[in-house]
Amino acid sequence: MTTAVLDNQKMKTFEEMESAVRSYSRGWPTIFEKAKGYKLWDIDGKEYIDFFAGAGALSYGHNDDVMQEKLIEYIKNDGVIHSLDMGTTPRKEFLESFKEIILTPRKLDYKIMFPGPTGTNTVESALKIARKVTGRDTVISFTNAFHGMTIGSLSVTGNSFKRQGAGVPLHHSVAMPFDDYVEDYDSIAYLERFLEDSGSGVALPAAIILETVQGEGGINAARMEWLKRVEEVCRKWDILLIVDDVQAGCGRTGTFFSFEPAGINPDIVCLSKSIGGIGLPMAITLIKPEYDQWGPGEHNGTFRGNNMAFIAATEALNRWKTDEFGKEIMKKADILRDAIESLIEAYPALNGEARGRGLMQGIAVHKDDLANEICAAAFKRGLIVETSGPKDEVVKFLPPLTIEEAGLKDGLAILEESIKEVLA
Amino acid sequence: MTTAVLDNQKMKTFEEMESAVRSYSRGWPTIFEKAKGYKLWDIDGKEYIDFFAGAGALSYGHNDDVMQEKLIEYIKNDGVIHSLDMGTTPRKEFLESFKEIILTPRKLDYKIMFPGPTGTNTVESALKIARKVTGRDTVISFTNAFHGMTIGSLSVTGNSFKRQGAGVPLHHSVAMPFDDYVEDYDSIAYLERFLEDSGSGVALPAAIILETVQGEGGINAARMEWLKRVEEVCRKWDILLIVDDVQAGCGRTGTFFSFEPAGINPDIVCLSKSIGGIGLPMAITLIKPEYDQWGPGEHNGTFRGNNMAFIAATEALNRWKTDEFGKEIMKKADILRDAIESLIEAYPALNGEARGRGLMQGIAVHKDDLANEICAAAFKRGLIVETSGPKDEVVKFLPPLTIEEAGLKDGLAILEESIKEVLA
Amino acid sequence: MTTAVLDNQKMKTFEEMESAVRSYSRGWPTIFEKAKGYKLWDIDGKEYIDFFAGAGALSYGHNDDVMQEKLIEYIKNDGVIHSLDMGTTPRKEFLESFKEIILTPRKLDYKIMFPGPTGTNTVESALKIARKVTGRDTVISFTNAFHGMTIGSLSVTGNSFKRQGAGVPLHHSVAMPFDDYVEDYDSIAYLERFLEDSGSGVALPAAIILETVQGEGGINAARMEWLKRVEEVCRKWDILLIVDDVQAGCGRTGTFFSFEPAGINPDIVCLSKSIGGIGLPMAITLIKPEYDQWGPGEHNGTFRGNNMAFIAATEALNRWKTDEFGKEIMKKADILRDAIESLIEAYPALNGEARGRGLMQGIAVHKDDLANEICAAAFKRGLIVETSGPKDEVVKFLPPLTIEEAGLKDGLAILEESIKEVLA
Amino acid sequence: MTTAVLDNQKMKTFEEMESAVRSYSRGWPTIFEKAKGYKLWDIDGKEYIDFFAGAGALSYGHNDDVMQEKLIEYIKNDGVIHSLDMGTTPRKEFLESFKEIILTPRKLDYKIMFPGPTGTNTVESALKIARKVTGRDTVISFTNAFHGMTIGSLSVTGNSFKRQGAGVPLHHSVAMPFDDYVEDYDSIAYLERFLEDSGSGVALPAAIILETVQGEGGINAARMEWLKRVEEVCRKWDILLIVDDVQAGCGRTGTFFSFEPAGINPDIVCLSKSIGGIGLPMAITLIKPEYDQWGPGEHNGTFRGNNMAFIAATEALNRWKTDEFGKEIMKKADILRDAIESLIEAYPALNGEARGRGLMQGIAVHKDDLANEICAAAFKRGLIVETSGPKDEVVKFLPPLTIEEAGLKDGLAILEESIKEVLA
Repeated sequence: MTTAVLDNQKMKTFEEMESAVRSYSRGWPTIFEKAKGYKLWDIDGKEYIDFFAGAGALSYGHNDDVMQEKLIEYIKNDGVIHSLDMGTTPRKEFLESFKEIILTPRKLDYKIMFPGPTGTNTVESALKIARKVTGRDTVISFTNAFHGMTIGSLSVTGNSFKRQGAGVPLHHSVAMPFDDYVEDYDSIAYLERFLEDSGSGVALPAAIILETVQGEGGINAARMEWLKRVEEVCRKWDILLIVDDVQAGCGRTGTFFSFEPAGINPDIVCLSKSIGGIGLPMAITLIKPEYDQWGPGEHNGTFRGNNMAFIAATEALNRWKTDEFGKEIMKKADILRDAIESLIEAYPALNGEARGRGLMQGIAVHKDDLANEICAAAFKRGLIVETSGPKDEVVKFLPPLTIEEAGLKDGLAILEESIKEVLA
Repeated sequence: MTTAVLDNQKMKTFEEMESAVRSYSRGWPTIFEKAKGYKLWDIDGKEYIDFFAGAGALSYGHNDDVMQEKLIEYIKNDGVIHSLDMGTTPRKEFLESFKEIILTPRKLDYKIMFPGPTGTNTVESALKIARKVTGRDTVISFTNAFHGMTIGSLSVTGNSFKRQGAGVPLHHSVAMPFDDYVEDYDSIAYLERFLEDSGSGVALPAAIILETVQGEGGINAARMEWLKRVEEVCRKWDILLIVDDVQAGCGRTGTFFSFEPAGINPDIVCLSKSIGGIGLPMAITLIKPEYDQWGPGEHNGTFRGNNMAFIAATEALNRWKTDEFGKEIMKKADILRDAIESLIEAYPALNGEARGRGLMQGIAVHKDDLANEICAAAFKRGLIVETSGPKDEVVKFLPPLTIEEAGLKDGLAILEESIKEVLA
Repeated sequence: MTTAVLDNQKMKTFEEMESAVRSYSRGWPTIFEKAKGYKLWDIDGKEYIDFFAGAGALSYGHNDDVMQEKLIEYIKNDGVIHSLDMGTTPRKEFLESFKEIILTPRKLDYKIMFPGPTGTNTVESALKIARKVTGRDTVISFTNAFHGMTIGSLSVTGNSFKRQGAGVPLHHSVAMPFDDYVEDYDSIAYLERFLEDSGSGVALPAAIILETVQGEGGINAARMEWLKRVEEVCRKWDILLIVDDVQAGCGRTGTFFSFEPAGINPDIVCLSKSIGGIGLPMAITLIKPEYDQWGPGEHNGTFRGNNMAFIAATEALNRWKTDEFGKEIMKKADILRDAIESLIEAYPALNGEARGRGLMQGIAVHKDDLANEICAAAFKRGLIVETSGPKDEVVKFLPPLTIEEAGLKDGLAILEESIKEVLA
Repeated sequence: MTTAVLDNQKMKTFEEMESAVRSYSRGWPTIFEKAKGYKLWDIDGKEYIDFFAGAGALSYGHNDDVMQEKLIEYIKNDGVIHSLDMGTTPRKEFLESFKEIILTPRKLDYKIMFPGPTGTNTVESALKIARKVTGRDTVISFTNAFHGMTIGSLSVTGNSFKRQGAGVPLHHSVAMPFDDYVEDYDSIAYLERFLEDSGSGVALPAAIILETVQGEGGINAARMEWLKRVEEVCRKWDILLIVDDVQAGCGRTGTFFSFEPAGINPDIVCLSKSIGGIGLPMAITLIKPEYDQWGPGEHNGTFRGNNMAFIAATEALNRWKTDEFGKEIMKKADILRDAIESLIEAYPALNGEARGRGLMQGIAVHKDDLANEICAAAFKRGLIVETSGPKDEVVKFLPPLTIEEAGLKDGLAILEESIKEVLA
């Protein structure tokens, strides 16, 4: 029996029983069984280096030893697993650590909301409260933004395939050009022109929502200067600034919040993915106290109290007690950036363009399907890496932040071989 | 220092750091630490009987021994915790068990979608696919329905406080009267009148979405006859029937799906809450194969692969291998019903009305705040029980399905004492 | 050459040059040339009795002698034809006559708005101001309502063919059952149930809009008792009551406003069609002074100053200086009602049902296309009469209010012959 | 008694009885009685030169002798005044003249729809049919567009004061930058960037709607090159091109259609205002035959058959039988342009900017309220001229196309005196 047939049989359960909506199990047709750090193994014992990290949800790597221990201990002690928004010990400890380790040192003052355990929950809660406190309905989002799949979040998401999936027209949002969207055009000047002109057809919005680095939209990193100017626009017109830091936050770009180097102070911040530490569903919405005008239970949800996530989350925060972790990330980011630039230079047929910052980088290749082919070749060689961008034109690198330099280099070596094969 | 002050200090972290949106920690102002079966303990060692069960997410009770063991074993073995919709061993096993134990014996044929791990995710995915396959935008929902807090789900939710929280008008939905909504009126005749009349102002909908027992809306249980007639209406006009079985499903009413006694065959079924077995975030959407017209990744989300939930979920399904579990539930349901009726008779000042079926029952009391007062008194005595209904007018009982009869009776005894106190 | 071919040639210009949207020239395929009182003549000199009256826009008949004289005089004197909302002599005279003859004797106090010269303009202006002053977005309308073809008015119109013509989903409206919509159901009890229940899914509306007799929807006349109860509901919940009196107003039912017999006092009244006296485009919106919160020019339009219409309108108001005109209308309404009942009795194959009141009556025939066939047969015999209702199931009689009794009887005789032919 | 008090008494009827929405009677507080050609007289016999021409509805001047005669003759002969969309002699003659004089010589092929007699009716019909034939919902409009006051038209209108008047959020439209909107930006490049990028958040639209010269939005004239490029964009992406020629059409810019010099061929054209010849309400929608996919009566309205307007309209078309009329317009346009430039040069304090083309020109003055002050001063001196633009920052000149050169110069002389006074 050939391997292809065996592979086919291996995936039979998924093919026959799962909805056609499944996607990753198509590109990576195997069954994963174990994982540790930056590595995964499938049921055949094959090893993979992980440059995907759960789409950014596994920034602390797979199965951190300390987190594992704490989870096991909690289960053994009959800790409360599920608690909605009741008080529990892990919730209390997370709140206190988040304040002490993250907010206070950064001089940030936010109320913490548990809006349901996914990225789209935190975005929906952010949009709701922004509309409630301003009494306005429009939210300005940016080209190639990705904020989630439920109708509210989808309204501020750019991708047309995802948007059409809504089955209804999406409203109350206006798309403006992200940094560097049209070559040589100042996108902030453009935005301001629409806001200052009472005849522009664009209403004063409740909020502007943005990702500092657009993960799904093509690893587009806004310049710090641009972020500062967006904040100035918000202040000038009394618009709330929402930073969706679901993918770029929790250290992905080298600082806990991705917006720290810009020196801005968003009114609302959305966190999910790696906030849960070990990959368990969790999300929080940070809201400036003056905008925390919710009624009790006005937004709710069954899984707001995932205590196992709180335990891993609290442990993860400990990494941020000193500057060390951030420095390591930036060091590896430099290695990654150098490697990307070398590849672009070495393989001009890629017509490659370096994108991103921190450990959220990519190579945009300007040819149909090329990025997908590279990722497929990499998978065969034992590297998990996916594409990004409206046309899947970017090979996107999201290794765990905790990856060793050796692992990073091993992965990059596989990548280069894969590029070679595909271009051959 | 008085206990009140101590309590105050105990909750300080939540009061100071959490958003004003928090709700349960207001009514139950303590910090829960441990839980097992139908019991909870707080940090002061006080014991509580749980008639709430995580709003229905803990139907198998807290910390089931076998589930605990399997989770610990999985963590110890470095099992993959987070996997989006990649193939993993726990996902495969869940799919196979679900088919073998649940679908096949019930002669049901569904594709299984993992839409993100919360109730509102499954509802949003159901609405999307219904709209896509029919090309229509309207969805008919019922008075006092609750389907979730994101904009799509909120559009088919009845509660005006929750709806106003949206901050934008909610569209593409029409509210029709639930079973027995207006006394002596046939709500299906009413619905049909609107559908058959091309001048009614109500468009042919993509779908009708319903809960067989409305959990948040007041423990309103539809008659089986009514459910059958809704299905007939759907067939007659080629409308998709969506059953949101997030709260009433997974055995809550005595059968795995709450609609089984009606003999209907919904086109789409939404499951969450107790599907995850031990209270971990998980949701699935069941879609008849002919309607599974998603494109790959057309609806996605980071936490669709919560493998720890899959492990507990698979273990939970084992309970359904024989009829025994269902019979036990129904036996306890009878005890609960008898107790409710006795209370109503014994305390005419309640002006009480028995509601619900299975282990999803309640007492509607027709006096402002009375239900809240009863729940507060019960909490002091060590019983966790909450209210339901548009005016919080129902005391709602959702004990774990696994509760022992003794536990059920102990809880009911506390309830009676609490009623006595409040009526005194 | 046969007549059919000749007819064909006669309509060639319309068939070739006009959009497929044209409708009346299909059912009445001739070219009309002259008209006086209740009669029309086509270019072949054929005479027609008019039981259609411009869909209610010609209640004072064609080419009233005095109106003709005044128009000719105005043109000869170079009177201002078009004036937007500038002050002109005819506008001033209309305003003063309307106050003196219509409002003051009825103890009504309204500000008069000129919203653009068509029915849909006045409805759109009514919806706008109701939403503005209440700060709410929903408007409740009724099954089989017809309020106009622009997106705002269409949102509160029931007909599905018209609604689909919008090309976009229609929002901010909820359809409730009109009087007697579901047999033996009290539609007000139903409406109140939705309003009083905060979980119903229907928000407190800005306004309720209704026609007292639904002209396009099937000549459904609400009972006065029902209208009073709608007004009570509006007062109880602080909802604005809008009466769209575009077709039923200006005396069509025997009183100037169709709602007078109910003794209600709407907050906003929409008038168009016969307000212009001789069939020239004109509309007004009457708004209680406390709700007249427009900014200058907040709603505008080029043809708000159709002075020729004002002149004919002012002359038309003179008819209402005494009770005489109303009495004559009611006398003829009785003749019409008697004739309808006789026909229903004489032709049981019609399975007929008498509808309407005043000179706005109809026969509902419960068989597909029968009403259309009767109208087609009548046209051949020289009677202009059209159908109404969601399935064109009603033969609708809207003769000029000024028709002589002889004309009414002549028309009814043609109608009977047409029924005979069609049933044969 | 002072004049001010007398003036006050004169306007008393309007102030007391009309809605607060009235606007022109505030800026021009008098009662107009007679009008001929380019002149108006009020009840005190004061003469005014008309540089406003009914906001463009009186391009053929007031009370054209021939039109007056034809109207009087028609009334005397008991012509059919009101006819919905029945066949009548004036409708037939208008259709035939429009084809022969306007369409055929310009090699244009359109079906003619009578959508109701106002500008907003034709725009709503255009939007509906574009959405129906494409199956798409979004329509792209431009900054500072004005298309009408009903909800559909308002959705594609830019002015925020007007939009807020809707009382509901406005949907299904996206505002793009008009020609020269942001200095040094190529607004077409921007539009194309959004269309070509499937991640832009802007869906492929049903149509692009535009005015070639924005009348209400500030007399912004698009360059012919820009119009051509918009048409190319429409062809490239299979988007319908709608030209709203309500204000700029019917010769206002020197050619019958304002888009003729650009050599484009729109899919749908909206005409109203001066199409009715003498200022009577009328509108038509021109639709390419392949897009004329209406069902009979799918869009309707009571006043689609304003026969007096058809008579004057047909007479007006006669002006276009030769090139003469267009040449005269352009000659006067040059005079107007020269005068404007002279004023700008002579009065640097105006900080003036010349706008527009044909007899649709203006002076933008960049100082708050200055334009309003100039218009008020002009009114006192006997010149009717109004402002335009989102901040009323443009003095707008729309004299009748038939104005004699002497009249034009007299008006300009008054204008100069008014400027002098205001600047003094």
